[in-house]
Amino acid sequence: MSGTLYGLGVGPGDPELITLKALRLLRSSPVVAYPAPEHGDSLARAIVASHLPGGQTEVAIRMPMVVERFPAREVYDRAAIELGGHLEDGRDVAVLCEGDPFFYGSFMYLFGRMAERFPVQVVPGVSSLTACAASLGAPLAARNDVLTVLPAPLPAETLRDRLLATDAAAIMKLGRHFAKVRDVLEELGLAGSARYIERATMENQRLLRLDEVDADAVPYFSMVLVHRRGEAWS
Amino acid sequence: MSGTLYGLGVGPGDPELITLKALRLLRSSPVVAYPAPEHGDSLARAIVASHLPGGQTEVAIRMPMVVERFPAREVYDRAAIELGGHLEDGRDVAVLCEGDPFFYGSFMYLFGRMAERFPVQVVPGVSSLTACAASLGAPLAARNDVLTVLPAPLPAETLRDRLLATDAAAIMKLGRHFAKVRDVLEELGLAGSARYIERATMENQRLLRLDEVDADAVPYFSMVLVHRRGEAWS
Repeated sequence: MSGTLYGLGVGPGDPELITLKALRLLRSSPVVAYPAPEHGDSLARAIVASHLPGGQTEVAIRMPMVVERFPAREVYDRAAIELGGHLEDGRDVAVLCEGDPFFYGSFMYLFGRMAERFPVQVVPGVSSLTACAASLGAPLAARNDVLTVLPAPLPAETLRDRLLATDAAAIMKLGRHFAKVRDVLEELGLAGSARYIERATMENQRLLRLDEVDADAVPYFSMVLVHRRGEAWS
Repeated sequence: MSGTLYGLGVGPGDPELITLKALRLLRSSPVVAYPAPEHGDSLARAIVASHLPGGQTEVAIRMPMVVERFPAREVYDRAAIELGGHLEDGRDVAVLCEGDPFFYGSFMYLFGRMAERFPVQVVPGVSSLTACAASLGAPLAARNDVLTVLPAPLPAETLRDRLLATDAAAIMKLGRHFAKVRDVLEELGLAGSARYIERATMENQRLLRLDEVDADAVPYFSMVLVHRRGEAWS
């Protein structure tokens, strides 16, 4: 009997924002896998570190730092083979996913390689989208609002067009694209009401106005929320 | 000392999809409030029923069934006064929110009335957006995908325009708007790859192809996910 591949959403960063279901499956899986940088610690593993019972086989899926060349196919090909071996031997494998596995997560590359061969179960998690809104005290969307999620690497013109055609927007993965995003928001008259947050729910979370942000020091885990009426409920 | 108003995301339906943080605050709050229909049981309360320790004061915020005339201001005005009384007396109040409090949730109407007068903390939850994707086994969005959340009550023309300008979409709150949504998706050639789900993660969850859905029996808690490339990872 094959093991089951679990894609576990572990939430946005606060270890207490994991679900009971993800926690149960995390603890009961003999193999735990997680994305990690080429050198150094895995954020996904750090989120659950206090929950690990010990004694589990750990598999770090190490991704060379090639900016924005995703997915690195060979890394996922190799990981699928290694994790597939555990599953074939009957061991459940829990793959840790920051936030939610299917919301801009790298888990889908394993899912695409393995879902036809093995039983897969995805456990949804608290995504950065709603975590950022909660930390900012800023409702995302209400009633019949259109809400658009925009990755910041998109061209300025695309960002502008999509912002003009939505009520509310979340602009993700800012990093070195922050200045471009800020300029577009200024052009549209949205910069004053936009809200910036980095590392939501983590210990080093920061909330800033757009004009307070140092564009050269914006991390990947950051987001701008904007509502064209100022507030979702107004 | 005033109590704290907690907006607790209790997740999409499966009681195991509550976070550790929401569970802790749910159990420690002397007052628990939740939205409810004019007559009958509250879904939000049903989700957490197995977690309640007993002995808490419960406040049902009962909403007359007026289709799509939200928010019913008087109901929230009265609820804000009642809950404010508990907070003034120093009692914490936990407001249960299906999914996430700030993702199309009614909590924001209490938040708008109370956040300036009382300490408020919002605990993000697993939203229906990612829960539906997990249950469907369908990644929502990847890499630089634009993801658009569309409430089904929007006019057909708006839905069509927004679908043409996005990579992935989640169409929510289908109910009696299902036939309109299906027609738009058919017109755009997206009906075949679209996925329908109702009551995600609940015991009576159903997954259907669009052509299997009875348009006259679609509940409010339903969603269609669609990706213009067919799959998020392709």
